[in-house]
Amino acid sequence: MEGLEALDRLSSQEVVVMFLGLGILLALARVLGELVKRLTLPAVVGEISGGIILGPTVFGKLAPSMSQFIFPAQGGNAILLDGLATMSISLFLLLAGMEINLSTVWKQGKTVLRVGTLGLLIPFSLGFAAALYAPDWLGFEENGHHLAFALFLATVLSVTALPVIAKILMDLDLYRSDLGMVIVAAAVLGDLIGWIIFALILGMVDTGHSQGHGSLATIVSVIGFAAAMLTVGRRWIHWVLPWISTHAGWPGGVLGFAMSLSLLAAAFTEWIGVHAIFGSFLVGVAIGDSPHFREQTRTTLHEFISFIFAPLFFASIGLRIDFSTHFDILLISLMLVITCTGKIVGCGLGAKWGGLPGREAMAVGFGMIAQGTMGIILGLLALMAGLIGERVFVSIVLVSLITSMLSGPLIQRALRRKRMCRLADYLQAKTFLHRLQAETRDEAIQELVRAVCQSAGCGRKEIEERVLQRERAMSTGLGNGVAVPHARIAGLKEPLVCVGLSSEGIDFNAPDGKPAQIILLLLSSLEDDCAQIELLADISRTFANRETRKLALQAEGFSEFMALIRSGKEF
Amino acid sequence: MEGLEALDRLSSQEVVVMFLGLGILLALARVLGELVKRLTLPAVVGEISGGIILGPTVFGKLAPSMSQFIFPAQGGNAILLDGLATMSISLFLLLAGMEINLSTVWKQGKTVLRVGTLGLLIPFSLGFAAALYAPDWLGFEENGHHLAFALFLATVLSVTALPVIAKILMDLDLYRSDLGMVIVAAAVLGDLIGWIIFALILGMVDTGHSQGHGSLATIVSVIGFAAAMLTVGRRWIHWVLPWISTHAGWPGGVLGFAMSLSLLAAAFTEWIGVHAIFGSFLVGVAIGDSPHFREQTRTTLHEFISFIFAPLFFASIGLRIDFSTHFDILLISLMLVITCTGKIVGCGLGAKWGGLPGREAMAVGFGMIAQGTMGIILGLLALMAGLIGERVFVSIVLVSLITSMLSGPLIQRALRRKRMCRLADYLQAKTFLHRLQAETRDEAIQELVRAVCQSAGCGRKEIEERVLQRERAMSTGLGNGVAVPHARIAGLKEPLVCVGLSSEGIDFNAPDGKPAQIILLLLSSLEDDCAQIELLADISRTFANRETRKLALQAEGFSEFMALIRSGKEF
Repeated sequence: MEGLEALDRLSSQEVVVMFLGLGILLALARVLGELVKRLTLPAVVGEISGGIILGPTVFGKLAPSMSQFIFPAQGGNAILLDGLATMSISLFLLLAGMEINLSTVWKQGKTVLRVGTLGLLIPFSLGFAAALYAPDWLGFEENGHHLAFALFLATVLSVTALPVIAKILMDLDLYRSDLGMVIVAAAVLGDLIGWIIFALILGMVDTGHSQGHGSLATIVSVIGFAAAMLTVGRRWIHWVLPWISTHAGWPGGVLGFAMSLSLLAAAFTEWIGVHAIFGSFLVGVAIGDSPHFREQTRTTLHEFISFIFAPLFFASIGLRIDFSTHFDILLISLMLVITCTGKIVGCGLGAKWGGLPGREAMAVGFGMIAQGTMGIILGLLALMAGLIGERVFVSIVLVSLITSMLSGPLIQRALRRKRMCRLADYLQAKTFLHRLQAETRDEAIQELVRAVCQSAGCGRKEIEERVLQRERAMSTGLGNGVAVPHARIAGLKEPLVCVGLSSEGIDFNAPDGKPAQIILLLLSSLEDDCAQIELLADISRTFANRETRKLALQAEGFSEFMALIRSGKEF
Repeated sequence: MEGLEALDRLSSQEVVVMFLGLGILLALARVLGELVKRLTLPAVVGEISGGIILGPTVFGKLAPSMSQFIFPAQGGNAILLDGLATMSISLFLLLAGMEINLSTVWKQGKTVLRVGTLGLLIPFSLGFAAALYAPDWLGFEENGHHLAFALFLATVLSVTALPVIAKILMDLDLYRSDLGMVIVAAAVLGDLIGWIIFALILGMVDTGHSQGHGSLATIVSVIGFAAAMLTVGRRWIHWVLPWISTHAGWPGGVLGFAMSLSLLAAAFTEWIGVHAIFGSFLVGVAIGDSPHFREQTRTTLHEFISFIFAPLFFASIGLRIDFSTHFDILLISLMLVITCTGKIVGCGLGAKWGGLPGREAMAVGFGMIAQGTMGIILGLLALMAGLIGERVFVSIVLVSLITSMLSGPLIQRALRRKRMCRLADYLQAKTFLHRLQAETRDEAIQELVRAVCQSAGCGRKEIEERVLQRERAMSTGLGNGVAVPHARIAGLKEPLVCVGLSSEGIDFNAPDGKPAQIILLLLSSLEDDCAQIELLADISRTFANRETRKLALQAEGFSEFMALIRSGKEF
C-alpha cells in the first residue's frame, strides 16, 4: 500500500461533506434559479441568492457550527470547492465565448461600431474619473494600485453581460430583429474589449499572480495570445474540427477536443499572469463560430455547463462573503448612477449617431446596462487579485444583479412592447379536456367554451356564438390534425386557452381533409392586438413537429401535456 | 479582506497545475480511447493506458521531477484530483444505473433467472473457494479480513460490465435480439446483486470508512436504502419528474434534479459506511427507466459523463499506481482461469437449462466474461478500503481489460457471426468523386467503376459489365435522389464502395422519378452473403434522413462527407 498512502486523499468524512455540500448547493441554486425565472428575472439572481442563504450571510449566522461542517473554510473541502468553482467559471466562460459570433459584429457595420465605442467610452470615462478623483467614495482602500483600481472600476461599470442581454431580447422576441442585432453585436464588441482591458490591468498589478513574469511581459503575452487565438488559432481550429469528426467517434472527439483545449489554454493564461478563464474564453470564441461545431455538441456543453457548473459557481460566490456586513447602500447607488448614466447616454448617443430613431436608440441604451454575470466575474477576479475589497465586491455583485433586472422592463417601456404571448403561459389543468366527448365541430366548440367559461366564470352564450360565427366564416383547421377555433372578446383581461384531445378526430374542414385530434380554443381581448396572432403563431410552430403532435395525443394528463409544450421551446 | 483570506484556496501556481494536469490527462485519455476503438477494443482500455503512461509506470520513471510537478502526490492538487476522480466515478455510476432497465429482467423470465443465478453462483463459488483455501496464490496479504477478502475476490470475478457488454452486442447487431436481451438482462441482474454483495462486504470490513456505525448497522442501512430506492424512491421519482418538467424550465429542471439527487444519495451512502458511488448508482436505476426522463436529457448526461468525466476517472487510475512493479503474471493468469471457467460454465449451463441451443448458450457464457469497468471500479474501492493490496488491484484491472477484449471475438466465433458491415468502414478519399462528370446513368457507372478500379488495382472491364447488367435487370434508384448501383464479384477480399455526387442529378429510373444526386457504387464478394445486404441496409438507413441527404450534397470534400456519415450513427 506504500504507493497509495503516499498520496494526499480526501478522508471518508471529507467525501461525505463534498457530496453533501455540492448536493445542497446545486439543489438550492437550481430551485431559486427556477423561482426567479418565474418572476421573469435572470436565473443568476436566484443562483447567487442560494449561495448567500447558505453562506455566512444567513445560514452561517443561524447555525454556525452546522454551516462550518457542510461548507468548511479550511482543509481539503475548502480547496476542493475553490478548485471546482474555478473550473466551473472557466467552463462558463468557454460557453460565453462560444456565443460570440465575430461575423455579427462586422455585419452590423457602423451603428455597432458607434454604439460599441461610445457605449464603452462614456461609462468608462465617467467611472475612471470618479474612481480617480473620489476614490474614497468608491470604496478604494489605501493599499496601493490606485490607477489599477480606477481602471478596473471603469471597466466593470462599462461591460455588458452578453448571455443576460441575449435572454432578455429573446423574451421580447427582438433577438433576430435589427435592433436586437445591434445590441448584441455592440455587447460582443464591448465584452471582447472589456476582457482585454481587464487582462491588461491584471498584468499591471502583478500581485504575485504571474509566475515570475514582469508586468510588461504579461501584457505583451496577453495581447499576443489573444491576437494569435483569434486569427491563426481560430483558423487552425476550423481546419482541425472536421478532421476530428472524420477520424474520431462523434461527439466524443469534438467534445473532448474542446474541453482539453480549453483546459490547456486556461493553464497557459493563468501561467502568463492573467486569470485562467481568459484562456477558456478565447478558445470559446475561436471554436464557437466554426460551422463544423455541431448543434448537438453545442447543446450538450450548453446544458451541462449552464445548469450544473454555472449554478455551482454563482452559488459559491455567496458562500465566500457575508453580504450583510459588507452591504453599502451609498456605494451601490453611486455605482448604479455612474453605470446607468454612462451607458444610456453613451449607447443612446451612439445609436442615434448610427441612425436609429430616438425611441429605439434609448432602448439600445437600456439594453446595454445589464452587467449580469460579466460584472460579477470581473468583480470576483479583482477581489482575488487584491484589487478591491469586499465592500466594493458586494456592491459590484448587487449592481450587476439590479441592472440585469432593470434592463428588460426598461426596454419594454421604451418600445412599448410586451413580452410575447406563449401558449404555455395560458394552459391550465382545469381547461385541459383529455377526452373530448363531442363528435362534431359545433359540439366540440360548445364543450370547450363550457369548460373555459366555468373556469373563468364568464357568460357562455355570447362567447359560444362568436366562436361559431368565426368558424363558419372560415375553417380554423390548420391541417395535420390540429384546429384552433378562436374569437376576440371585448373586456377580457388576458387570453383564455382551452385544449381538447380527441382520439377519433373531429372534422374541422381542414385543407388536408384530416380530422382534428388536437383542438385549441383561443379567446383573446378585443383590445389586445398582438395576443391572438402571437398565440396562433406559437401554436402552429409548436405543432408543426410531427413528434410533438404524436406525443401530445399520447399525453396521459395535463402535466405531461404541459411538459411537452414547454420542452418544445427553443430556449 | 479578512473573510476571504480565512478561506483555504488554491494558489495561482496550483491553478496552473490543475488546468495543465487535467488538460493533458483528458487529451491523452481521449486520443488513446479513440485509437483503441479503431482496433475495435473498448475505449476504457485506451483511457486507462493514458493514465498508466502519464503516471509512475512510464512518465514518472522517465521524467520524475516533471511528473511530480504536473501530478503532485501531495498538497491541494492531489486532493483536488482525488475529489474530482471520486465525483467522476459517482457520475459514471449514475449513468451506469440509468442504463439498467428493471423491466427487461422480468420480461426475459426464466432463462434470465437461470443464467443470472448460475452465472453468478458458479464463478462466485470457484473464486470464493480458491481465495479461502489458497489465499497466498491469490495475493492475500496477512492483515486480517480473510473472509472479506475471499468474498470480495469471489464477487469481482463474477461481475459483468453492462456498458461493455451492451457495446459489444451492438457492434455485432445482436443487442435487440433475444440472445442479446438474455445476456443484457442477466448482466443487469448480476450487476445489481454484485453491488449489493459488495456494499455488504464494505459494511463488514468497517475500515474506518463508516462514520461510527457498526458493521451490522451499515449492512441493515444499505439493504434498507437499496430496497427503499428501488420501490418507494423509484415511484416517487417517476411521480415527481413530470411535475418538475411542468413547473421548471426544461431541461435545466430535470438535469439539476437528477444531479442534486445523485450527489445527496452519494453523501448518504458514504455516510452510512459504504462507498458514495452506491448511492449514485441507485439513483440512476430509479430515474433511468422513467418515461418522463427525456431522450435529450439522457443524451446530455451521457455525452458529458462518458466523454469527459469517465476518461478523467479511468486515466486517474493509472496515475495512482506503478503498473510495472505490481505486475504479477501468475496471479493474472489464475484469475483469468477462474473467472472465465466459472462464467462460461455457469452461464452456459444456465442458458442451456433455460432452453437455448448449445452454440448460443456458449455465446451467452462468452458474453458474460467481460468484467470491464465494473471490475476496475470494485477493485479500486477494495484497494482504498484496504481489502486488497496493489498487486491484486493491478491484476484485477488487467483481468478486467483482457476479458473485455476477449468477449467480442469469442461471441463472434461461437455464433460464426461477423461484425456488421458499415458504409463508413469502406469510404475512402480516393473513391469519393465530389463532382461527377457523367450525365447519364451508364456514364456515371463507368466513371465510378473507373475510380474504384484505379484505387483497388483490379480489372475494369468485367466489373463494369456486371454492374451495368445488374442495373438493366432492375433499377437501383432508391428514390429521394439516392441510387446504389452494385454487383457481386468473385474473389473480392472485402467490399469496395465508391461515392459520386452530382448536383444536376442523373436519371436512375427511380420509383419516385427523381434524378439521383448521391450515387454509391457497391462491389462485394460473391462468397460473402451478408456484406451487400448489410451495406445496402446501412445506406438506406443513413440516407432516409432528409437533412443527411441535404448535408451530403453540400459536403465540401471527403472529410466533411465522412464526418456526416459517421455522425449519423446512432451509437
